[in-house]
Amino acid sequence: MDGRGFVRDAWYVGAESGEVQGAPLPRILLGDPVVFYRAADGRAVALEDRCCHKRAPLSLGRIEGDCLACGYHGFAFDPSGACVRAPGAPGIPERARVHSYPVIERHRYLWIWMGDPAKADPGAIPDFHTNDDPDWARTGACLPVAGNYLLMIENLLDLSHVGFVHAGTIGSDDTSASIVWESEQHRVVGVRASTDIDTPPHNRRQGFGPRCDQTKVMTFLACSHITIDITTRERLPAGSSQAARQMHIMLLNSITPETEGRCHYFWSSTRDFAVDDAAVTEFFHAMTVRAFDEDRVMIEAQQRIIDLDPSAPTVTVLGDLGGVQARRLVSARLER
Amino acid sequence: MDGRGFVRDAWYVGAESGEVQGAPLPRILLGDPVVFYRAADGRAVALEDRCCHKRAPLSLGRIEGDCLACGYHGFAFDPSGACVRAPGAPGIPERARVHSYPVIERHRYLWIWMGDPAKADPGAIPDFHTNDDPDWARTGACLPVAGNYLLMIENLLDLSHVGFVHAGTIGSDDTSASIVWESEQHRVVGVRASTDIDTPPHNRRQGFGPRCDQTKVMTFLACSHITIDITTRERLPAGSSQAARQMHIMLLNSITPETEGRCHYFWSSTRDFAVDDAAVTEFFHAMTVRAFDEDRVMIEAQQRIIDLDPSAPTVTVLGDLGGVQARRLVSARLER
Amino acid sequence: MDGRGFVRDAWYVGAESGEVQGAPLPRILLGDPVVFYRAADGRAVALEDRCCHKRAPLSLGRIEGDCLACGYHGFAFDPSGACVRAPGAPGIPERARVHSYPVIERHRYLWIWMGDPAKADPGAIPDFHTNDDPDWARTGACLPVAGNYLLMIENLLDLSHVGFVHAGTIGSDDTSASIVWESEQHRVVGVRASTDIDTPPHNRRQGFGPRCDQTKVMTFLACSHITIDITTRERLPAGSSQAARQMHIMLLNSITPETEGRCHYFWSSTRDFAVDDAAVTEFFHAMTVRAFDEDRVMIEAQQRIIDLDPSAPTVTVLGDLGGVQARRLVSARLER
Repeated sequence: MDGRGFVRDAWYVGAESGEVQGAPLPRILLGDPVVFYRAADGRAVALEDRCCHKRAPLSLGRIEGDCLACGYHGFAFDPSGACVRAPGAPGIPERARVHSYPVIERHRYLWIWMGDPAKADPGAIPDFHTNDDPDWARTGACLPVAGNYLLMIENLLDLSHVGFVHAGTIGSDDTSASIVWESEQHRVVGVRASTDIDTPPHNRRQGFGPRCDQTKVMTFLACSHITIDITTRERLPAGSSQAARQMHIMLLNSITPETEGRCHYFWSSTRDFAVDDAAVTEFFHAMTVRAFDEDRVMIEAQQRIIDLDPSAPTVTVLGDLGGVQARRLVSARLER
Repeated sequence: MDGRGFVRDAWYVGAESGEVQGAPLPRILLGDPVVFYRAADGRAVALEDRCCHKRAPLSLGRIEGDCLACGYHGFAFDPSGACVRAPGAPGIPERARVHSYPVIERHRYLWIWMGDPAKADPGAIPDFHTNDDPDWARTGACLPVAGNYLLMIENLLDLSHVGFVHAGTIGSDDTSASIVWESEQHRVVGVRASTDIDTPPHNRRQGFGPRCDQTKVMTFLACSHITIDITTRERLPAGSSQAARQMHIMLLNSITPETEGRCHYFWSSTRDFAVDDAAVTEFFHAMTVRAFDEDRVMIEAQQRIIDLDPSAPTVTVLGDLGGVQARRLVSARLER
Repeated sequence: MDGRGFVRDAWYVGAESGEVQGAPLPRILLGDPVVFYRAADGRAVALEDRCCHKRAPLSLGRIEGDCLACGYHGFAFDPSGACVRAPGAPGIPERARVHSYPVIERHRYLWIWMGDPAKADPGAIPDFHTNDDPDWARTGACLPVAGNYLLMIENLLDLSHVGFVHAGTIGSDDTSASIVWESEQHRVVGVRASTDIDTPPHNRRQGFGPRCDQTKVMTFLACSHITIDITTRERLPAGSSQAARQMHIMLLNSITPETEGRCHYFWSSTRDFAVDDAAVTEFFHAMTVRAFDEDRVMIEAQQRIIDLDPSAPTVTVLGDLGGVQARRLVSARLER
């Protein structure tokens, strides 16, 4: 399945905008070598990271205006992948080109389409606007994980792991609350409403009282994105004449396959409160880094156990519903 | 052959008793992931180290009374492998269980049966009583070796390597002495009697004279144990009226396959003299650690050469008789 | 193809003379384990580095006069590979022997023949006399490279890479000069004549004027050697009565396959000027080490990209002519 077992007609996050600055950035995506760089006008370009001449990675080369030149013998390619210089050839050989991947820069990410370019509809890119909306604060990173990307998808769609994996960090999730899952053609949505629960510390610090209501909406967007939209509403004393305030946290997760056994986990934690408070941003950043590293340890251990015997049977329970539906969407797309 | 080429209906040493205390101990045995832990009453338990839910290793989880709970989503299993808690399920799913391996704690070891539990007869565990007999002193350890376990078995059954591999440590074995091998259904026994030889230094330090007689009995107990029983008798002056004293060293070796290319080498050096002398124990410990590390280097080099061309032919000589008979017992069992 | 995809009936450089002194030298060549050592009279011997008894590498053993004794159980082999001692056997078993490879020490190298010994004609060893000719100075080394040996062969036969890979070290090669390639049965020769070019600094330091003529003759000697013969002639003022001086640099490159994905790159830089000037030798050594390490980085990156998808197509241009012809010679030999 290596590199062939992935849905290619889909938008994946290939890089954070900030990762692609002066130098070409190499990255293996869906088993293929890709190089990101910026043309003279700053536009992001994604090419096959394999010179058509001698298969050297173009990422070891040099940006020349809009083009990327191989660092081995100087073949140069424009953003369309066309060869524009072929030293050692009388002209440009007809078949001399590399693949150019559609790439769109939006919401702090470089979105890449690894499949048929004709189907690459920019409108299909998920709405990650909170990543660069001035009314929201944002922090995030890219975490490399030595596990299949679907293990991370499942992890995020079953938050019952929070009380176990993250017992020492972000603490116990209220697993007793019922989740309602709905599956549509391109997404799976789970909603969990919790009433009259302890207010999380970060909301209390913004002036909320000790108890609150909370709604979590988890959305899997086939094939590699999961948003977690957390709305926390303060509970006012009975008969209060004030309007109840609410705060939002929007977690944006994109898990891009590297190979069958590895993935790039791009995460963003965004919020619409304490937007200018760097200490709060730092708090969310540090907490998330610690928590996601706990996930990484678990998923990498899981992958090693799977590799020992990929055919070992498993048991599926109701709590896996989100993950099961997500895998179903992915499988359906792979069959098409 | 990985994990499939092993005799499963046999007792293997899975761990030293002391290795399994507060925390679960993960170990790959015969290609399978196993976790050892102790129930509330201290009894040793060995479970499949792979949660039936999402295949996370249970060894990353938590001991809860008699049970082991997965650290991912909290599935819990009792010592029989039955699932006793399945968060996210309305009840316990019918097929929710992990394999529980028969395990017996005896003579400082946890003995595990990787095959059909119905055949696990505790009476078939080798007699390693010198490991915890108060009349004997003991030292030992577990040495990981990157080589097939049968390479270590062969090593121990052909002591002619001592003069070469251990020339700088435990010194030259008297290879001229004849060895008589006998093969029975479940074991291979080699006896070597040496008469009027130099007394080993550790016997001299206990008051023996300069010359002695010595008998070595090497016993391979199919499929992974080798005992080496060394009896040293002092030689009295002709016509002496004293009774000749004798001292015993019993070496207990258990080599448990990890995968086709790796093994766990459990060794114990026990003796019935200077039992309370910690310095003597330390002497035997240090000497054995150094010597067995020399064996490890050789066996790992041998394995790398074998991996380069597993079909390269070999020549067998009379000195290999013990190893040949041991391999024959193992092959016969594999065919059954 | 691992170990089987190589031309065996050919002379390869197995080691530098200086690498084989007191201790046996292990080296994997063409996928096979080889050990080099010297007999009592200093003559170099190359044996299969795999004892016929238990497949331990003989390189962990001990040289005994003309023989090499295994460090495991003491089997000893003479330079012909015949077993001369087999402890544990009543006599020498008939099939007890290891392969002995024809080896010739010449021009500071140990040349080894990995194929049919009957075809090993010492006259077919390339003329590398500048390596130990007193009229020439020499420096060199062996560089391990994690890439197929043919990638390094191609590298050396297309010097257009110099302006790109070595832009920061040995600088830009004059790629505009035409190269004429000729292919014979056992070799490929490329000649490049450059007229009235800037004199290289190392020639200027020997008193040459600012402009010179230069001829480079690149010769691929199937299947693993490339010599680069550089003649630099000073340009005298028009009408000068002096005889024009010339200086030579002869680069000797031998790339010996280790496995399909690795090679040993033996290089020598020799010259017929400033022969006794250690500072000039040091200059060439340091420059070459830096430059070839740049090649190594590129070739190892290329190999990793090839491994991702060995079937990815490539484009061949006129500048590849030398490499194409070299590969053709190798393929023709493999088919025979």
